[in-house]
Amino acid sequence: MKVGIIGASGYGGVELIRLLHRHPYIESLSLYTSSNDGKMIDDLYPHLQNYVNDPMKPIIVDEMAENLDIVFSSAPSGVSTKVLPPLLEKGIKVIDLAGDYRLKNGAVYNKWYKKEPAPLKWLEKSVYGLCEWNKEAIKNAQLIANPGCYPTSVLLALGPLLNDRLIDASSIIIDAKSGVSGAGQSPSAATHFAMCNENFSIYKVNQHQHIPEIEQMMASWMGENSPVTFSTHLVPMTRGIMSTIYAQKKERVTLTQIYESFHRHYKDSPFVRIEREGHFPMTKQVYGSNHCDIGIALDMRTDRLTIVSCIDNLMKGAAGQAVQNFNMLFGFEETAGLEGSPIYP
Amino acid sequence: MKVGIIGASGYGGVELIRLLHRHPYIESLSLYTSSNDGKMIDDLYPHLQNYVNDPMKPIIVDEMAENLDIVFSSAPSGVSTKVLPPLLEKGIKVIDLAGDYRLKNGAVYNKWYKKEPAPLKWLEKSVYGLCEWNKEAIKNAQLIANPGCYPTSVLLALGPLLNDRLIDASSIIIDAKSGVSGAGQSPSAATHFAMCNENFSIYKVNQHQHIPEIEQMMASWMGENSPVTFSTHLVPMTRGIMSTIYAQKKERVTLTQIYESFHRHYKDSPFVRIEREGHFPMTKQVYGSNHCDIGIALDMRTDRLTIVSCIDNLMKGAAGQAVQNFNMLFGFEETAGLEGSPIYP
Amino acid sequence: MKVGIIGASGYGGVELIRLLHRHPYIESLSLYTSSNDGKMIDDLYPHLQNYVNDPMKPIIVDEMAENLDIVFSSAPSGVSTKVLPPLLEKGIKVIDLAGDYRLKNGAVYNKWYKKEPAPLKWLEKSVYGLCEWNKEAIKNAQLIANPGCYPTSVLLALGPLLNDRLIDASSIIIDAKSGVSGAGQSPSAATHFAMCNENFSIYKVNQHQHIPEIEQMMASWMGENSPVTFSTHLVPMTRGIMSTIYAQKKERVTLTQIYESFHRHYKDSPFVRIEREGHFPMTKQVYGSNHCDIGIALDMRTDRLTIVSCIDNLMKGAAGQAVQNFNMLFGFEETAGLEGSPIYP
Amino acid sequence: MKVGIIGASGYGGVELIRLLHRHPYIESLSLYTSSNDGKMIDDLYPHLQNYVNDPMKPIIVDEMAENLDIVFSSAPSGVSTKVLPPLLEKGIKVIDLAGDYRLKNGAVYNKWYKKEPAPLKWLEKSVYGLCEWNKEAIKNAQLIANPGCYPTSVLLALGPLLNDRLIDASSIIIDAKSGVSGAGQSPSAATHFAMCNENFSIYKVNQHQHIPEIEQMMASWMGENSPVTFSTHLVPMTRGIMSTIYAQKKERVTLTQIYESFHRHYKDSPFVRIEREGHFPMTKQVYGSNHCDIGIALDMRTDRLTIVSCIDNLMKGAAGQAVQNFNMLFGFEETAGLEGSPIYP
Repeated sequence: MKVGIIGASGYGGVELIRLLHRHPYIESLSLYTSSNDGKMIDDLYPHLQNYVNDPMKPIIVDEMAENLDIVFSSAPSGVSTKVLPPLLEKGIKVIDLAGDYRLKNGAVYNKWYKKEPAPLKWLEKSVYGLCEWNKEAIKNAQLIANPGCYPTSVLLALGPLLNDRLIDASSIIIDAKSGVSGAGQSPSAATHFAMCNENFSIYKVNQHQHIPEIEQMMASWMGENSPVTFSTHLVPMTRGIMSTIYAQKKERVTLTQIYESFHRHYKDSPFVRIEREGHFPMTKQVYGSNHCDIGIALDMRTDRLTIVSCIDNLMKGAAGQAVQNFNMLFGFEETAGLEGSPIYP
Repeated sequence: MKVGIIGASGYGGVELIRLLHRHPYIESLSLYTSSNDGKMIDDLYPHLQNYVNDPMKPIIVDEMAENLDIVFSSAPSGVSTKVLPPLLEKGIKVIDLAGDYRLKNGAVYNKWYKKEPAPLKWLEKSVYGLCEWNKEAIKNAQLIANPGCYPTSVLLALGPLLNDRLIDASSIIIDAKSGVSGAGQSPSAATHFAMCNENFSIYKVNQHQHIPEIEQMMASWMGENSPVTFSTHLVPMTRGIMSTIYAQKKERVTLTQIYESFHRHYKDSPFVRIEREGHFPMTKQVYGSNHCDIGIALDMRTDRLTIVSCIDNLMKGAAGQAVQNFNMLFGFEETAGLEGSPIYP
Repeated sequence: MKVGIIGASGYGGVELIRLLHRHPYIESLSLYTSSNDGKMIDDLYPHLQNYVNDPMKPIIVDEMAENLDIVFSSAPSGVSTKVLPPLLEKGIKVIDLAGDYRLKNGAVYNKWYKKEPAPLKWLEKSVYGLCEWNKEAIKNAQLIANPGCYPTSVLLALGPLLNDRLIDASSIIIDAKSGVSGAGQSPSAATHFAMCNENFSIYKVNQHQHIPEIEQMMASWMGENSPVTFSTHLVPMTRGIMSTIYAQKKERVTLTQIYESFHRHYKDSPFVRIEREGHFPMTKQVYGSNHCDIGIALDMRTDRLTIVSCIDNLMKGAAGQAVQNFNMLFGFEETAGLEGSPIYP
Repeated sequence: MKVGIIGASGYGGVELIRLLHRHPYIESLSLYTSSNDGKMIDDLYPHLQNYVNDPMKPIIVDEMAENLDIVFSSAPSGVSTKVLPPLLEKGIKVIDLAGDYRLKNGAVYNKWYKKEPAPLKWLEKSVYGLCEWNKEAIKNAQLIANPGCYPTSVLLALGPLLNDRLIDASSIIIDAKSGVSGAGQSPSAATHFAMCNENFSIYKVNQHQHIPEIEQMMASWMGENSPVTFSTHLVPMTRGIMSTIYAQKKERVTLTQIYESFHRHYKDSPFVRIEREGHFPMTKQVYGSNHCDIGIALDMRTDRLTIVSCIDNLMKGAAGQAVQNFNMLFGFEETAGLEGSPIYP
C-alpha cells in the first residue's frame, strides 16, 4: 500500500508515522502539510531522525490521487471539512482523525464546534470508525471518521451495557480525565508546563464537543436520544485517558450478567481487555498501545455501576484506532502494525 | 501557648511544624514521636534545618500534661485510639488528625477501618472539626477530630446544598482525585515514583473509609441517612484534591438560588472562595494555603449540578484545618498563622 | 512603606505579591502594568482571589514618584532599560529583577542580550544586589540590580572559595539545572507541557546571558577575568535550581579549610545553609523559601571539588532576594517577610 | 531460538519481555524467578495481560540447560555472581544485565560494590557488551556482561574522542542525570513519589559503582588509567539518561576533526545518531528506543568540549542493548526486534 499522511506535523501525525513506518503491509509513506512544506519532519521532531527520508510535500490533490492508496488526515477540526472533499471526489479512501465527519447532523456540528459543517454528501457517506462496533460498515467505507479520544473510551465501556439494556441510559454520568497531549502540539496558556505541572483542572464542563458524538452512538444503539453528563479534566501527564462512568443498573440485573455481557461482546476484540472483579485499570498499563482496558464495580448500597475505561489518547484514541480501521478496511489482521505491548514503566 | 505535636515525622506533622513555628500565639513547640525518639527532625527533613532546635521526645503522658496547653496528634489511624485517651484523661486538649475519633459509631469505624474503635467515652465527647459548620461545638471541645481530606472538600461543597434542601441527596456521586502525598510518607508500591508518574489510577472504589465520615455529617444535616457513591483517584502530583460532585437539583431550584446559598453560608468564612459562574477552581490555586475553592455548573439538559471543590490535602485537608480549629478553640482570629497566600506557580 | 510593583503579572511579580502582601513593614501595595491596565490580578491568577483588592494601574511616572517609597520592577530584560530611568530621575528607589542593570559594561550587555544597554549613568550607579556579598553598597543604593537566578546559586557557592583563593578559577565548570518557571509565564514550544514533561534537555550551551554576570562578580573578587564553562538544563519541574560546580582545589588546601571558609563567610547569613560533610542539598528542600543550601565534596582521586548549590529560582533567585534587598536597603531585619520555612513535600 | 529470562519481574526483565515477545527470531520465551515462582507476570504488571501465557518458573539449572538456547539475566548485582556460574558450566550462553561480570578485577568490584566478586574464571571469560566497540568479542562470547546505563551513555560519547586522542583524558568531568526507573522497581524513601516529584537531587558523588566500569573501558582504549570525576543526579521523570561531559580538547584539534571522528566511528552503527552543530539531544527523543543521541559543542573561550549523550536507561542502557548483543551474538541483523522509533510525545 502507498500511504499518505496529511497534517503530519501534529501529534496525531507523528504517532501515525511511528506506527506506519513499520507496518507490514505498507510500501511507501508520504507526508503532506499545509504549513511546513519542504521541511524535514525530523527538524520538527528530532526523535524521528533516521526514520523518514523525504521532506514533507504540499497537498496537491491530483498528485495524491494518482500516487496513493489511502490518506490518513490528521488536520485539525475545521480544516478537514475543506481539505478532504476534493480528495474524496477523486475516489481516494480517507481515514480522518478530526471531528468533522463524525456527526451526521451538520447543525449539531455547528452548535458544538462553532464551525461550518462538512458537505452533506460526505457526512452521509462517512462511517464512524469505532472498530469494535462498526466492523461491517468499516470494511466498505470510503471515508472513515476516526472516533474522538474521549468517545472511544466511553463508548467501549457503554456498548455492552446499552446494547444489552443493562443500565438506565438517563442516569449516565461520565467523569473523564486526560493527559495534556490531547490538547495538541500548539503551545497555549492552558498547556504551559508551569500551569499544568502539579495541577489538576477541569474544563468545558457540560460543553465538550465530544458530548454529541457520544450521544449519537448511544442513540444508534438505543433507538432514542438520552443526554449524558460529561466532565473533562486535565491530568499532569502527557498520555492517557481514564473515563470513570457512573450508571444506575436496571433492576434484577446482576454483576455476573454484566461481566458476561462484556466478555461476549469483546471475545473477538484483541485490543479490549476486561479486568477481573475487584481490579481496575490505570492509564499507564495501556501507554503506547492500542488497548482499551475496562474495570467494573457494582455498589450494592446504591445499585450504581462504576465502569472505568483507560486508553492511550494518541493510540486507541487517535492514531492507533486509525491504523486498526486501516487494517479492517483492507482486510489485514486487525493487529497488523499494532502488536507492540504497552511500554512500562 | 505551649504546643506539642505527636507524630511529628509524618507529612501532617511536618506541615504542622511549618505552620506553627511562626504562629503568632505560640510560645513553644515540642515534637513527640514513638519511633524517632532523640532524633532531630531536620535529619529526616532537611528543609527544616534552622527551624527546629530541639530533638524529638518520647511520648510521656505526665510530662506532656504538665508542660503543654494543647497537643496536635498526627499519629496514624489505629494509633490515636491508644495514644490519646491517657492524655485526654489528664484533661489536656487534643486536636487529632487521624480518623479515629470522627465516627461516632464504633461499629461503623470497625467495618470501614478494620480496626478496634477508640473508647466510647471519647467518641462521644469528640467534636467533628469541620470549622465552617461546627463553630460553636469547636469552641467548647476538649477533643477535636480534624476532618479527613476528602470529606473536607466534599462537605464544604455539599453543606449549603443539603442544608437548604436544594438537591436530591440520594443522587449524589462524588468523583474525587488526590495528589500522592495523601498516602503519607511511607514508601510503597502504590507510591513508587515510576508507578505514579505519567499515570492516573483509581483505588478503593466504593470502599474508602471516608464514605461513612461524609455520610455521618450529611445525616446530621438531613436528619436521615443517604448513601453516596464515592470514587478516589491518584493524580501524578504531590498536593491537592479536587472533588467533582454530581447531584440532581430539586425541581424549581434555580442557579441563582444555589449561588445565593453558597454566598450566604460562607460570607464569614475567610477560607472558602466561591468562583463566579462559568469559572472552576484548579488544585494549584490553593497550593500551600488553607482555602477551599468551589465552582458550580448547572446542566440544563439533565438538571444536574456539577460542583467542583479544591483544597490542598495537607492544609485545609489536614494541618491547615487543624490550626484553624486551634484558633477557634482558643478564640484567636480564625486566620492566625494561616495568612499566607497560595504559592504559584 | 508604600510599595509598587511593575510587571506584576509575570511570575516574578506574582511571587513578589505573595511575599509583600504580608510584609510587616509595608503599608500599601500597588500593581503596575503596561499590558493589563485596569484588570484585576486575580483574573489572571485565581490563586490571588481575596489577596489584592485594587486593579492594576498604568505606569505613570509622576504619580508613582509622588505616591511610592520604592518600586520593584519585574518587567522583562530590554524593557527595564526604558521604563526605569524616568522613575530614577525622579529620585525614586528601584529594585530591578531584570538583567538590564547588572552588567556594568554596556557592550558586554549588548553582546550577550542582543539588546541596547541601559543609560550609562544608571549602569554606573546601580548596585549588584547579591545580598550576602554586597551589604554596604546595598544599604546606600538608589538602584539595585537584583541578581539572576543562576548567578545567585553559583556565586554564593564560589564566593568563599574565590575570596579565600582556595580553588583555581580557570578550572571552574558549572553544570546548572532549572525548573521550567525560570522561562516565565509566556507559553512557547520549549515550555509546552508535552515537550517538558518526562524530558530533560540542555539549552544555550556556553551562550547563556548569565555567563558575563557570573564572570563580572568573579573578577571583582579575583582582580582578574577568568572565563567559566557554563551549561544550563531544563528539569521537568516548576521551581528550583541546582548548580553542580566543579573546580580544581589549590595544592595543600584541605577540606577542613574549605568548610571553615564557608562557615566563616556565612556565619551571619540567615538564608545560607551549609550541609554537613557527606550531605548534599536537593531543590525541594528550599521550595518556596529564600534559602541557598550548599553541599561540598572533595574527590581525592582527582583533587577536584564538587560544590552543589540549590535555590528556589523564584525566591532567592528572584522575588525573595529582591525582598531581602528591600530589607537591607531600609534597615529592616534581613528576614522580614521571608520567615516562612520551605514547603515540603 | 528458545529464550529464558531470569529476574523477569524487575524493570529490566519487563522491558526484555516487551522486546522479545515480538522478536522475529524467537520461538519461545520462558520467565524465571527466585521470588515469584508460579505467579503470572501480568498479576504483577497488568500492562502485560494477553502478552504472556505461562507462569514464571523456578530457576532449575538442568531444565534450563536442556530447554534454552540462551538466558538473559536481569537479577540484581550480587545475585548474578551466584546464579549464573552453574548455568555457564552447563555451556549455556548468558547475557547478564547486572554489574557482576563487568569488572575484570574482583578486588575493584568488591571495593565499589561492597560484595563478593564472581568466580575468577567467569570474570576472565566475560565479554563487555558495549556493542559499538566490542563487535568481534561479542560474536564469540559465552557470557556477555551488558554495560551499565550510565557507562553506556558516557563511553559512546568518549569512544571516538579517546581512541583518536582528541581530548585530555585527565580533564574529563561527567555530570550525569537519570530518570527514577534506574533505581529499579523496589520502593524506597528515595524513590517515593512525594520525594522525587518536583525535586532534583544529587547522589553518590564520586562514589558511584559505574566509575570503575567507565575507567576500565577508557584504560583499554588509552593503555593507561585515568580517573574521572563523575556525579549522578535524579530527575523527576521515569526514563532517560543525559550525560553532560566536559573535557579539554588537545591543542590544534578542530571541531571539524571532532565531528569527523564521531561520524567515522559510528557510520555503521544504526543506533548512534550524531546531532548537527548547534543541536543537542534531549532525553525524550530516544524514549522507548535503543538510540544513543550525541551533541557536541566547543567553547572557544576555554577550549573545552561539552558532549551531551542521551539514552533510554531501560533500552540502550539495559534491555535494548542486551537484545542488540543477542542479535550480534547469533549473527542476526543488529536491529532485529529493535526497529521501533522512539515514542513521542
